[in-house]
This record gives sequence, structure tokens and C-alpha cells, in this order.
Amino acid sequence: MQLKTNNAMLLDKIDKPTLLLDKNKCLTNIRSMVQRAASAGVHLRPHFKTHQSKEIGRWFRGFGVDRIAVSSLRMAAYFASDQWTDITVAVPVNLREIGLIRELAGKIRLQLTAESLASLQFLEKNLNEPVEIMIEIDPGYHRTGLESHQTDTLDAMIGFMETSSFLRFKGLLSHAGHSYHANSPAAIMDIHHQSTDLFQQLVDRYQHRFPDMTASLGDTPTCSTAHHFPGATEIRPGNFVFYDLTQHHIGSCSKSQIAVAMACPVIASYSSRNQIVVYGGGVHFSKDRYTLPDGKTSFGEMVFLQADGTWQLPDTPIQVVSLSQEHGVIQADAQLLQQLQVGDLVGILPIHSCMTADCMKGYLGLDGQPIEMCKIYEW
Amino acid sequence: MQLKTNNAMLLDKIDKPTLLLDKNKCLTNIRSMVQRAASAGVHLRPHFKTHQSKEIGRWFRGFGVDRIAVSSLRMAAYFASDQWTDITVAVPVNLREIGLIRELAGKIRLQLTAESLASLQFLEKNLNEPVEIMIEIDPGYHRTGLESHQTDTLDAMIGFMETSSFLRFKGLLSHAGHSYHANSPAAIMDIHHQSTDLFQQLVDRYQHRFPDMTASLGDTPTCSTAHHFPGATEIRPGNFVFYDLTQHHIGSCSKSQIAVAMACPVIASYSSRNQIVVYGGGVHFSKDRYTLPDGKTSFGEMVFLQADGTWQLPDTPIQVVSLSQEHGVIQADAQLLQQLQVGDLVGILPIHSCMTADCMKGYLGLDGQPIEMCKIYEW
Repeated sequence: MQLKTNNAMLLDKIDKPTLLLDKNKCLTNIRSMVQRAASAGVHLRPHFKTHQSKEIGRWFRGFGVDRIAVSSLRMAAYFASDQWTDITVAVPVNLREIGLIRELAGKIRLQLTAESLASLQFLEKNLNEPVEIMIEIDPGYHRTGLESHQTDTLDAMIGFMETSSFLRFKGLLSHAGHSYHANSPAAIMDIHHQSTDLFQQLVDRYQHRFPDMTASLGDTPTCSTAHHFPGATEIRPGNFVFYDLTQHHIGSCSKSQIAVAMACPVIASYSSRNQIVVYGGGVHFSKDRYTLPDGKTSFGEMVFLQADGTWQLPDTPIQVVSLSQEHGVIQADAQLLQQLQVGDLVGILPIHSCMTADCMKGYLGLDGQPIEMCKIYEW
Repeated sequence: MQLKTNNAMLLDKIDKPTLLLDKNKCLTNIRSMVQRAASAGVHLRPHFKTHQSKEIGRWFRGFGVDRIAVSSLRMAAYFASDQWTDITVAVPVNLREIGLIRELAGKIRLQLTAESLASLQFLEKNLNEPVEIMIEIDPGYHRTGLESHQTDTLDAMIGFMETSSFLRFKGLLSHAGHSYHANSPAAIMDIHHQSTDLFQQLVDRYQHRFPDMTASLGDTPTCSTAHHFPGATEIRPGNFVFYDLTQHHIGSCSKSQIAVAMACPVIASYSSRNQIVVYGGGVHFSKDRYTLPDGKTSFGEMVFLQADGTWQLPDTPIQVVSLSQEHGVIQADAQLLQQLQVGDLVGILPIHSCMTADCMKGYLGLDGQPIEMCKIYEW
């Protein structure tokens, strides 16, 4: 046992799965995206669904960011309580939360996402303060949004807003989530071109009538790869704040840009099958995964934690080959088995940092300070 | 829009993804497992990692259950604070939590799981109150535990405890988690027989020296299927309290036994591809899934919610075909699309109720009362 329980170093204080956040990497990721947006002549409206943290939000504010996107009304309320006053809820509006919508509409510049006339009619009837409306366009991902040929519906929705009391047409929004199925920068750019072409046509159709309209697009893969966003006035990536192995797999970041790693205690090791088992499972990482070139499934990759909490990549990837509720199984080799003992800590890079952060509900900075996060599902 | 926001019925109060818990189904599941254990002549030590709730724990106590298993030391502390005094932490002990182990050892009858002499030596050196030790045996699942041929290690561990001041050999523990790879009751029984045979041999080896030793096994698939547990003195299933679609898929329950369903607001519907999108995604369900006979992936199945919060199964399964962070996509048909409108609520049965409960951090009873749950990752 190599436990140094009386040592005051960062790692020695960690006794359970803990999501380490390297602020320097995070700030570099933010700075780089701020610069990319500036060079492309678009606003950056970062999606805060990845980090869900007021403190990390303030790091963005330090770079001049003054508008954000979130994925739920409760997340909007959380950030509204930290002086964010221009917030897009970038998911089709949940009409059942009309009470919270009314509350937020009175406080901030709130943009709701809509894609049907019926939703707009419901909102108009039930609001007493104005809200702005982004109409969602499906760029080929086929999750949500109007298809680009549904211009009749678009016209009807915009027409309805022109005569409504509480709804203001703010612009068009799309999310090319199929960029997550790409596996190279070239494939990402193909999707980017297809989706911006579609989007541009619709923007052209309305921009003469609404010269100040917002045209919002951009996911982390395309925003990390493309330098031009034709038709767009703003980009809306989120995951880039941390990146993760999925983004690396797609080709949108290097592994060294990943800003979070889970510190996990080693609880068992098996020389007969070269496996190490850590305390760190599905309740910590979620169960996102991807298929490796050899057909095996990866749930994460091990890294070596340094005394200051930073981490070092191994020469050859060391995969997390399965996760159960609290256990993670790492496929190691004889040398690693020799090196690591029960009670040691290892780091694991997450497959999907948004999901992992949401599971953990908080971070530990490398200065030893916890970084708070939104806790939406409190009862 | 069919929203009845002024109606006081249960469903009308639900505005976001909410995990409904049907207490009657849950009590039936508990009663049935209590009876099965009694008939088999073994103690029931239910695994509370699934529900993680003091209130649900009290329902078990109402059936005379007086001992439990948990999957982390913090979960043990949570239940110890609600008068549970005999708790097995059924995961190889995390030595970094020695502080919490010391605290719990002074309060309750605590069983730790170990599988190496080094862990025992560390504990002996760092404890000042006695704890009981369960030695984990790998029944062929190959996640954790000593292999059955490692009797030298077993002997050495037991020998060490016989002369130690704070460690008491309590018994053997195994978890046949590979029963989750079964797809029929017959396949479950094959795994059950193989793993109990191995276990029985080891129990036979030690029982003459330790006639009161505990022999603990049993996962939900085998405990829902088998009626005899050769060699065992206690069974330790957990998931059965709620069951889920995975258990149905394996063959350990019917869909009507599943005691939890997520109420999700409909936020969009697409007649062009017969899909409904709900507010309810990976942050609510986790990302567990399984492959359907037709090769497609399921992330859940839709059910029809009744006004009293109970749910009805459709005639033909209606699959959740994808989950992103907050969105769930349901593959419907034209009739269902007609029937459901944006703003309505649907129910979704989870693929894996342990993970879903952990994501949600709480339940809503059908009487409208929230049911509290352990929140381990609070900062």
C-alpha cells in the first residue's frame, strides 16, 4: 500500500471518484473558440449544458462572452441567477414549464426555441411578458426542427409573431448533431457544408425582412474544424470547453486538450487477465462508449495522474473495457499491473464529458477547490 | 394543446422528466423476494444500490428485513443514519476511505469485501474498531473476486484474520453478474448452477472450521428464477425492487412488474418520420441500451400514463430509438402521432432502473409525494 493519508498534496485528499478540472486547459479551449468566432465575424453563444457551472460561466465572461445557450429552462434559471441576461434555451420549448417561462421572461432576454404554430399560440395565450423566438431548422440531423422545405410553416409562424403581443421573431437556429457521426475533419467539413448551405437558403429568404435576425448554428465538431460559418451570425458549441475522447475520435481535438479527467481509486488488480478494477463506474461516467478500430468497446482511457493533479497520456492507449454501477475495468499490461497497487489513484479521460459532468454534479480544480455545478434534479 | 395547468391531478403537476414509482408494484416485488428467500431457507440481504432511498429501505424493514448490501461506503453511511445496523459493502474495499471505514466500524456491524492479503494488512494497521470481512469469490463473471482455485490466498487471508485484532472472517461473497448476458430462464439457470457449484466447493472447504460463516450470492436474474441456492446462507439481489426492461429482456420479470417509469413531456412530433421527441434524455435515463431482435437499439419503451400516474403497456412495443443529453426520440406510428400532442406526458420504462434512479436522485410516488434518495456526489 502506498497510501499517504497524512500528506496534504491534492491527490492524497481524494478518496472517491472525483472529476478533476484543469482550468488552464479549459481557459485555452475557451480562448481558442472566442478567437475563432471573432475571426469568422460571428458572435459566440457558448452552450453551457456541458459544464453547467456558474464559476466556469464566469471564466467565459472574462473573455467578453455576454450571451449563452442552455438545454433546459431550469438551467436558464440557474444562470439567470448569476447575471446572465441573454439566454437561448436551445431545445423545443417545454410548454408544461409555462410558469418558469413567465418568471424568466420578466427577468432576462429569453429566447425560446419553437418549431410549430401550435406552440406559439399556446405561448401567446399564456405569457404576460415578451419572449424572443428562435425557429429551429433541421439541417439533416433529423432530431428536431422544421425541415428546410417547410417554408409554409415558417411563414405562418413568423406571420403569427408579427401580430402577436408577446412573441418576437428573433431568428433561426439549427444543430448539425450528425457531425458526431463523422470520423475525420474532412467528414466534419462535408456535414458543415451541407448544413450551412441549407441554412443559408433559409436565412436568405428572411434576412431582407429581418435584417437584424440571428442565425445560430454550430456544434463542437464543426466549430472546432471550420473557419467560416456562411449564413450564421452566431455559433453555439458547448462541449469544447472540456472536449473528450469522442471529440478526439471524431477529429475535433487532441487528447491533450481534454480538460477533465476522473480520479479513480484502484480497488483490485488481476495479473491472470491483466486487468485493474477501479472505483468509478456508470454512475460516475454515464454509459457512453464507442467502438475501437479492433471492434472492442471503450468506456474511457486511463491516464497517469501527477502529484499536482495534472495528467500524462500513456504511450499506448489503455482502455476502460467495461463499466458497471460503481466498477470500471481497465485492460492493462504486466508492467502497469506491477506499477499500480490497490489504493493508488489513476485518471480516466471520459468518452462524453457532458454526460460525465452531469453525473458528477461538481468538479475539483487542481488548486484543490471544488467547482460548483447546477443541480437540477434536487427534490 | 391539451395542457390542464389548473387541474390538481398528479400528472398535471409534472412539468419535467420525473421518475414515477408505483409503490404497489414495488411492494409486490419485495414481498415476492422475501417469500422466495424464506422458502429457500436463506436470509435476504437486499442490495440497496438500486433504490438508494431511506424510505424504500423502510418498506423492506416492514417485511422483517434487517440486513442490507450497498455498493459504496458513503451509501453505507447514508443507510446507517436510518437505523440499518448490519451492512455489507459488496465491492472490494476502497482503502482510501479509511476515515469513513473507521467511523462506520464504531457505529454498525460493518462487512467489508476483500480479496487480497495486502488490503487486510492495511485495514488491520489502520483500524481501531472491529470490522467483518467477506472474501469475494469470482464465480466466472471475471469482474472482481478471487478465482476458485486460489485457495492458497484464501487460506492466507483467513489465517491472517485469525490472529488479527480488528478483522473477523465473516464469510464468502460472490456475484454472478454474467447472468445479465443470459436471454432466457434456462440460460440464467445454467449460470446459476455453474456458479453455485464453484461456490459450494469453497464453502465446503471452510464451513467445518467456521460453522456460522455467511455464504452470500445472488443477483436479480438468478434470484428471480432459481428456487434453491446450494451453499448459500443469504441472497443479495437488488434490481428486483423495481426491475426494468433489461430484466424483462433476460427473462427475470414481466413488463408489468416494472415499478418505475419516467414521465416525460412531449416537445415535438414529426409525421414525416413518425417520431415523437420528449424532454427526457441521457441525463435522466443514463445511456444504457440493448439490441432488439431486429438489430436496432432500444433506450426504453413508451407506456401510456393514466390520470392516477399508473401506466398501461401498448399492444406492440413502442421503442425509444435514441437519447441525447435532454432529448429522447420515440419511434411511433401515424395513430400515436395523432393521439399525442406537444405538451402531453408519456411514460418510458427504463432499460436499467439502477442507473436511471441514480441519474434522477429521487422519485415521485403516485400519491404525489416525493421519495427521497441518497445524494452521494454533493459537493
